[in-house]
Amino acid sequence: MTTEQLIVQAVSAAKTWAATARQDRERVLVAVADALDAAGDDLVPIARRESHLPEARLRGELKRTTFQLRLLAGAATAGDHLGVRVDHADPEWPMGAPRPDLRRTAVPLGPVIVFAASNFPFAFSVAGGDTASALAAGCPVIVKAHEGHPELSDATARVVLDALRAAGAPDGLFALVHSPEQAREVLVHPQIRAGAFTGSIPAGRALFDIAQSRTEPIPFYGELGSVNPVFVTEQAAAARAQEIADGFVGSFTMGAGQFCTKPGVLLAPAGAKLLDLLRDATLPAPAPLLNDKIVSGHQRVLDQLSAHTGIEVLAAGTPAEAPASTLLLTTAADVLADPEALLTECFGPTALVVTYQDEAELVRVAEIVEGQLTATVVAQDDDAAVPELLTVLAGKAGRLLWNQWPTGVSVTYAQQHGGPYPATTAPGTTSVGTAALNRFVRPVAWQGFPQHLLPGELRDTDGGE
Amino acid sequence: MTTEQLIVQAVSAAKTWAATARQDRERVLVAVADALDAAGDDLVPIARRESHLPEARLRGELKRTTFQLRLLAGAATAGDHLGVRVDHADPEWPMGAPRPDLRRTAVPLGPVIVFAASNFPFAFSVAGGDTASALAAGCPVIVKAHEGHPELSDATARVVLDALRAAGAPDGLFALVHSPEQAREVLVHPQIRAGAFTGSIPAGRALFDIAQSRTEPIPFYGELGSVNPVFVTEQAAAARAQEIADGFVGSFTMGAGQFCTKPGVLLAPAGAKLLDLLRDATLPAPAPLLNDKIVSGHQRVLDQLSAHTGIEVLAAGTPAEAPASTLLLTTAADVLADPEALLTECFGPTALVVTYQDEAELVRVAEIVEGQLTATVVAQDDDAAVPELLTVLAGKAGRLLWNQWPTGVSVTYAQQHGGPYPATTAPGTTSVGTAALNRFVRPVAWQGFPQHLLPGELRDTDGGE
Repeated sequence: MTTEQLIVQAVSAAKTWAATARQDRERVLVAVADALDAAGDDLVPIARRESHLPEARLRGELKRTTFQLRLLAGAATAGDHLGVRVDHADPEWPMGAPRPDLRRTAVPLGPVIVFAASNFPFAFSVAGGDTASALAAGCPVIVKAHEGHPELSDATARVVLDALRAAGAPDGLFALVHSPEQAREVLVHPQIRAGAFTGSIPAGRALFDIAQSRTEPIPFYGELGSVNPVFVTEQAAAARAQEIADGFVGSFTMGAGQFCTKPGVLLAPAGAKLLDLLRDATLPAPAPLLNDKIVSGHQRVLDQLSAHTGIEVLAAGTPAEAPASTLLLTTAADVLADPEALLTECFGPTALVVTYQDEAELVRVAEIVEGQLTATVVAQDDDAAVPELLTVLAGKAGRLLWNQWPTGVSVTYAQQHGGPYPATTAPGTTSVGTAALNRFVRPVAWQGFPQHLLPGELRDTDGGE
Repeated sequence: MTTEQLIVQAVSAAKTWAATARQDRERVLVAVADALDAAGDDLVPIARRESHLPEARLRGELKRTTFQLRLLAGAATAGDHLGVRVDHADPEWPMGAPRPDLRRTAVPLGPVIVFAASNFPFAFSVAGGDTASALAAGCPVIVKAHEGHPELSDATARVVLDALRAAGAPDGLFALVHSPEQAREVLVHPQIRAGAFTGSIPAGRALFDIAQSRTEPIPFYGELGSVNPVFVTEQAAAARAQEIADGFVGSFTMGAGQFCTKPGVLLAPAGAKLLDLLRDATLPAPAPLLNDKIVSGHQRVLDQLSAHTGIEVLAAGTPAEAPASTLLLTTAADVLADPEALLTECFGPTALVVTYQDEAELVRVAEIVEGQLTATVVAQDDDAAVPELLTVLAGKAGRLLWNQWPTGVSVTYAQQHGGPYPATTAPGTTSVGTAALNRFVRPVAWQGFPQHLLPGELRDTDGGE
């Protein structure tokens, strides 16, 4: 289909879908989730072949994906994302003029483009969180398939399209494109109202720049990169060295380190037993990475880090048909001297351990990290360094963790998956959890309208005060 | 002060102010409002001299400004803008993994820059809505004074600074700069976390582009331009021609047409008596415009419009020491043929009346208008054209009005002052009303924290479920 045909269809679908009652949209999206669940035996083998991820992981991810679709569809019906506010008329309003009857709700933005990610071939891809939240919020979606799993993308899209059609959704509500050139044409089309992306900093920034330099700039929700630093206090390292070492190794090697929330940097006290435990840790056997591009990208950053003055290898597994897990070691002084080089994301099974001399230095490192999806504090309840550390880190990350590990992002009501740039290009938004819906609507106030002309949620009998 | 000194002060203030309890911030901002009220006799004469606006208007505007400061400060204490969400841990969470304890609140962004507007020397200037919402949300503010009222800006800043100091606010919480070059240096400084602007499309777009092309892009809340179209149905024109003519003339000439919500375009049925009434309307006597730049800008757009094929003058007052009020006339067919030229904002006492042949044509015009702050429907309760018109206009404007006029933007809880570009650069946000606070905070989720380390609003005893 030409780009213009895609857009014409999406614009037409946008009108019908926006006018569809939220509970009817939910019914349609639940049908899509059911269809995806039913197609698991067809989809998972394709996903295995294209992504090299293990079956159990992919089965779990598909379950997460359909859970997410149902959760977002239900949250959209509930309508929190509309941010309904009602002011009744008030002749005594002390502003110098009477207050009119003003009622605020939100409307869908219109057609959007979603750029799929490679590392979650279900949950952040064709029918993933961005697609689900846009559709649930009332927006048609054009997905740019990730080149890492083209067949799975097609197969998923067929299931989605068949389920949408069977459930009575308008034509053009969902479409899939493969060509990067066509995706760019879509992104700059005047009828496209937002973009969403998960991937690398250079690719995401290039698309963000395109979206912002349009005649009419549009919101671009890009999740780019994050090293997700972990701050281990002296007390915690002394009290729980083995538990911390095990937890860290488990988290940074999970999924062969191919998670956006992988703890890529861990700060530990110099001389701590924790360092010995990490040096002697049994790293998991090499697991194949998603694709050759990920393999070469991981190797390139690993080489850059390894070549940096003051970096040494703390522990490394034995490479086989896949890259080995690697722990690098440096000092906080080195990091403070060259943060850009050392606090760089190495997508894959590598992490950097940074030793600090005292907790004042620990806080200084926190102060110079860039925007992060997550920041983790591993500490004891009465640790003196913690309050200042938390204050600094709340200014740096979208999610703070206490004695837990950042991998495994729960899809919930209170989740926040997004932080200051470069973690995300729109730091006030989240791409996981029900607040992801907020990205695809825009508030509109209705002034002085009679009840019968108001959107349902603004009427006195339904949702109004 | 050098830019670096300004920023160092603001960064230092940001820490203290963010850590200040919200009710203490409210106390400080109420003290600023009180001080501004008390300084009215000093400030209003300067405002009169620099802006040429009448005394009563300026007194009312100052009242609005201090009302707004108190309302926003109170709303910040109430904490709606924090968007608190609490998920207790749930081992049965049906996603495939237990749900951790996750609690979401929001933190201030840090130092921001506010570019003041000329047309509201109090309410959208030094201590106006952007400054008030940023301070109330917990962010230090550097204001770029508008060159239209430099003395008033200095005098206002002195009152603000003295009041802040007396109330114990940290040094550097507020600063004023005059130089455009220095303002640009501030806007691109890595420690500045957002910008806010009210003014013209070219100036706003230039600043938006600077903000988005930073190494770390930042949110830029620009309110640029809007013609605020009014759609008069056939039935309404037949039933209430005199009331509509009077209301429209009153609204488009209010404040000599120098409001961002001025109804700059009115659509009326061809051949309607309303057109005769507008032709014969008594337009108000010329009032001096804000400054020479506004006078020449208004004249330039008026000349462009007047020179356009198919435009004629419907009614015009007699110019004296100031431009006369002018009503131009054209047809919907002409507008549909060249919307960019004809639906352009003419800042000052000029508006365009557009005649349509039937209500299908009325809807077609609605479909081609750009993003607007407001769109107004003047109609009867049972008008057949209204539902479709409202659906289209909800996709175009931030505020819809029903048989009311868009000038006079009430500062309330449900207000929405912002719409799709070019009305605003951040269509999901508002610069008026308590939701303006949302622009200056960013969500953060806290996972697995003990009660004593959580922000107060997330604890089970206060704000949690």
